[in-house]
Amino acid sequence: MTLRVGVIGGGQLARMMIAPAVELGLDLRVLAEDDGMSARLAATAVGDYRDIDAVRAFAAGVDVITFDHEHVPQDVLRTLVAEGVAVHPGPDALRFAQDKLAMRARLTELGIPQPEWAAVRDAEELQAFLDAHDGRGVVKTPRGGYDGKGVRVVRAADEAQDWLDAVAEGDALLVEELVPFVRELAQQVARRPSGQIVAYPVVETVQRGGVCAEVIAPAPAATERLSQVAEEIGRTIAEGLAVTGMLAVELFETDDERILVNELAMRPHNSGHWGQDGAVTGQFEQHLRAVADLPLGSTAPRAAWSVMVNILGGPTEGTLEERFDAAMAEHPTAKIHTYGKAPRPGRKVGHVNVSGDDLDDAVYVARAAAAHFD
Amino acid sequence: MTLRVGVIGGGQLARMMIAPAVELGLDLRVLAEDDGMSARLAATAVGDYRDIDAVRAFAAGVDVITFDHEHVPQDVLRTLVAEGVAVHPGPDALRFAQDKLAMRARLTELGIPQPEWAAVRDAEELQAFLDAHDGRGVVKTPRGGYDGKGVRVVRAADEAQDWLDAVAEGDALLVEELVPFVRELAQQVARRPSGQIVAYPVVETVQRGGVCAEVIAPAPAATERLSQVAEEIGRTIAEGLAVTGMLAVELFETDDERILVNELAMRPHNSGHWGQDGAVTGQFEQHLRAVADLPLGSTAPRAAWSVMVNILGGPTEGTLEERFDAAMAEHPTAKIHTYGKAPRPGRKVGHVNVSGDDLDDAVYVARAAAAHFD
Repeated sequence: MTLRVGVIGGGQLARMMIAPAVELGLDLRVLAEDDGMSARLAATAVGDYRDIDAVRAFAAGVDVITFDHEHVPQDVLRTLVAEGVAVHPGPDALRFAQDKLAMRARLTELGIPQPEWAAVRDAEELQAFLDAHDGRGVVKTPRGGYDGKGVRVVRAADEAQDWLDAVAEGDALLVEELVPFVRELAQQVARRPSGQIVAYPVVETVQRGGVCAEVIAPAPAATERLSQVAEEIGRTIAEGLAVTGMLAVELFETDDERILVNELAMRPHNSGHWGQDGAVTGQFEQHLRAVADLPLGSTAPRAAWSVMVNILGGPTEGTLEERFDAAMAEHPTAKIHTYGKAPRPGRKVGHVNVSGDDLDDAVYVARAAAAHFD
Repeated sequence: MTLRVGVIGGGQLARMMIAPAVELGLDLRVLAEDDGMSARLAATAVGDYRDIDAVRAFAAGVDVITFDHEHVPQDVLRTLVAEGVAVHPGPDALRFAQDKLAMRARLTELGIPQPEWAAVRDAEELQAFLDAHDGRGVVKTPRGGYDGKGVRVVRAADEAQDWLDAVAEGDALLVEELVPFVRELAQQVARRPSGQIVAYPVVETVQRGGVCAEVIAPAPAATERLSQVAEEIGRTIAEGLAVTGMLAVELFETDDERILVNELAMRPHNSGHWGQDGAVTGQFEQHLRAVADLPLGSTAPRAAWSVMVNILGGPTEGTLEERFDAAMAEHPTAKIHTYGKAPRPGRKVGHVNVSGDDLDDAVYVARAAAAHFD
């Protein structure tokens, strides 16, 4: 029987699973939020991922359920599992990606290096944290944030008063120290239900306005120690949280060479797009292998350097495809990936990968090619 | 507008266009021969490619027509062109891939090195050719042959009597000298309607029973001269025959270092599957770019060596996917490509690509991984 992998969510991460699924001969089926989503070619159902009936009906036609995003509610996930559906990652892992307070508490238990943090329920508790951390901190809503949303740097408790006012009884906000990092890194690992783990090289990520703009793989000037520490963090979290599928760990590197965990994502992640062209096994193929509990592929880079540059927003008029002529003519080594989404300011609508022996050259070509799509 | 590329034929070549089409954001539509074909995910119509009404209706929904195979009749192709449809490759090019006598005559005009050949209409003419070529020759039906079908080595005219009897008035068989080749090579080039041509490195192909079994890219021990001659042959044929899209030129290398043209294919070709993982731009992406008249991508290899091994026949019971566990566990660098076709003796049902710095190692891994699917 051909293995049927069901993906909840029809965004670009589901879309980019289509290519490896076709090549491997896996039957990829997508439960999309709407018609015309990014992964429309593989969409076999349209429905609300919060609706257990819609999700249950979709799950009945596949061998394993995985995700384009982390927003499927716990009660939906737990109902599926109780009914015998294979769900990867499962609800016990996903809750740490859905709730940043739970994530911080669990990483503390695991002894993972992370920013100092606290759960704060009111202005008094928040101000106490700020006072103890040079008068500043990063306040986060524990649930629902992404791409910089639900994150605010504050220098006084009243700057988060609106969020504090909205905190429900028994709930809290997360506050973290503002880490004086020198750069951001990301570590990806893949883990199968049966336990096998593979790690990718640690990469450098560049954020602009809270959104990933560029990735360099591997991270330049990464020492052996840094690479080992990052990999060990990734492996420990994957095992400690029982993650199945791809795990991305966003990291801060400090000026005193510490590495601290910023965020987690339990799915393919923007920091791993480089591997579609730059690694023997890209993260989308690897995620499919992992959730289907197939042996994992080599994570070796195919080139000395790979650079990913996001296409943010896209052209103000027309489609990305209308820019192909100029971009392709000038940059024949650029690998262009589009998401089939309408251009809109700030929206991730595609990315460009470039690999090569010379880092400066790869960065230049990737940026120049991506710039054709602005 | 998103560019719509229509592919006539739903086999594995159309299937392998899906992955690059998704990434580039091209709208790939396939006219399949039947339900459940290899390229079923992109199939938007089912119909007979010899039926002008079916083909015309399909063509009405796309911006350019291209092919999974070379069997669409000339009258269908010419009707489309007359009605203003962009067809790549066009009928004037394709007739040389459809008719081996026309191909030999045209390559002679172009001064391309090829085996000695003749058009023979009866036993007397065939015997005369054999007598002049050490008493042997390769007889070919000019049209409809593939993978060794329609090709016969003979030592006397009566060994081809059944084919001679079937030759229609005004038609002929092709006979060629039996070339004492030391190995077979293949040269691929891509050409856009607007004239741009790019060439891939010349590769070595190994045939078993008239079917491609393995490809090594680039061809081992290829001298600079050999590479240049092969590329020049590819470019000259692409221009001389006005090919658009991918062109594969199958070549004999003789013990006196001559290179002679064996066959042509005007589409992605088995000799180029290595490039899906081993070249910056694989042939399926390149074909899409070429037929859409987009700038062509870099043909540079991503590794010192890439090896492709076909999966012929497949398992006698069950599916390829049931062999994934063992194949993937033992060979994490092997890239497995499946065609979604039921296993059958001798049938091409998939292939394995392996790239690396060491040729012997790559050959070993590719063969060992492919063997898991027997």
